[in-house]
Amino acid sequence: MDLLLLSNSTSDEGYLVHARQAIESLADGRTHALFVPYAGVTRDWDGYAAQVREALAPAGIAVASLHEQADPQAAVAAATLIVVGGGNTFRLLQVLRQQGLLAPIAARVRSGAARYIGWSAGSNLAAPTIRTTNDMPVVDPGGFDALGLVPFQINPHYYNVEIEGFRGETRDQRLAEFTTLSPDTPVLGLPEGDWVRVSGNAFALHGPHAARWFLGERRWDVTAGPLALPA
Amino acid sequence: MDLLLLSNSTSDEGYLVHARQAIESLADGRTHALFVPYAGVTRDWDGYAAQVREALAPAGIAVASLHEQADPQAAVAAATLIVVGGGNTFRLLQVLRQQGLLAPIAARVRSGAARYIGWSAGSNLAAPTIRTTNDMPVVDPGGFDALGLVPFQINPHYYNVEIEGFRGETRDQRLAEFTTLSPDTPVLGLPEGDWVRVSGNAFALHGPHAARWFLGERRWDVTAGPLALPA
Repeated sequence: MDLLLLSNSTSDEGYLVHARQAIESLADGRTHALFVPYAGVTRDWDGYAAQVREALAPAGIAVASLHEQADPQAAVAAATLIVVGGGNTFRLLQVLRQQGLLAPIAARVRSGAARYIGWSAGSNLAAPTIRTTNDMPVVDPGGFDALGLVPFQINPHYYNVEIEGFRGETRDQRLAEFTTLSPDTPVLGLPEGDWVRVSGNAFALHGPHAARWFLGERRWDVTAGPLALPA
Repeated sequence: MDLLLLSNSTSDEGYLVHARQAIESLADGRTHALFVPYAGVTRDWDGYAAQVREALAPAGIAVASLHEQADPQAAVAAATLIVVGGGNTFRLLQVLRQQGLLAPIAARVRSGAARYIGWSAGSNLAAPTIRTTNDMPVVDPGGFDALGLVPFQINPHYYNVEIEGFRGETRDQRLAEFTTLSPDTPVLGLPEGDWVRVSGNAFALHGPHAARWFLGERRWDVTAGPLALPA
């Protein structure tokens, strides 16, 4: 099982540019990707697919979008590289559940038949549930269970800043709510520009910033390199 | 039907101090409140109730907490002032749903038998759904429908700031996702320090900051005074 789970897609260098080498390495010669645009809400799926198509062309990867497929089940069953874009995690999960594609995608990636690239909502989707997304619950996804491809929760766009005059919760306070109610489930706070590479049961953190593990009342930072899961 | 829907509880003046006169006016001589502490996750409900008890004492209001009641249904059925505190909206909705208290609370407030004060998650709860909460979905509430006491969505702690280096969505972008998928449902972005007073079918905005309506692709700001609902 091979996954690339990115915190985010954009940087000053351009769309997906910061991760291009990691994407090429994950693709490992695969020349066709099936893109899942369903997290896109305020952007139309045609335009979203076009942007990803353009971004992956330099890596020699041709992109077909799931929303263009006459038979989505067959498209998933044939995919060797599944790319899940960011946007709204609730909307992504809702559409995939409505189309009956969650179990087929999970099975195909778990078997090794397809590799998986996700960013933002696409990384949330790879976790057991979407309960550590930052997104607004703009639609009811019919349950929070997701693909469960990794044994920990991911919080993309991780940062912990207090904003002057803002009386709402900081990110760490939000994640502490999760770990209070689910003390045995680890959460990885993945900062902008970072990603996790999954190869079977091995995990590695890449990128410029330290990531943070949250487990029960424990918090600790980890830097790029092999990523040990919390015991 | 009388409601006081606050964006937030805390200010430099102290806990609930900014809204004390509004609370006294809403209470209108009622001397006993039933407090709902279930949005509290990282704070224990005893401590939360104690804080609210202390904050409402100067207004001459004695506070009983729902979590201390042997018969929660009977407590709701007898309440004349229901106070719903902030915290995590998903947790608040989950516990009230599990206890079968959503419909009884809504009916009691709608009939005028009880008045309602909410802040943050407690204001989200008064809306038709919790789909414009800022909170993390740390638990599955079993559906997003809420009390539906007002005919619009509320986004508490409203602000729209871009954070340097943060590639996630701004608040306005998040709310645009909601209005894209639910173009006929108005959302009121309620800044820190503001509140809405509901008296029957009349609405008024109070507080120092302009609030913002979101409806479909339309956006407009409103200042303190009578609050016209979007047509």
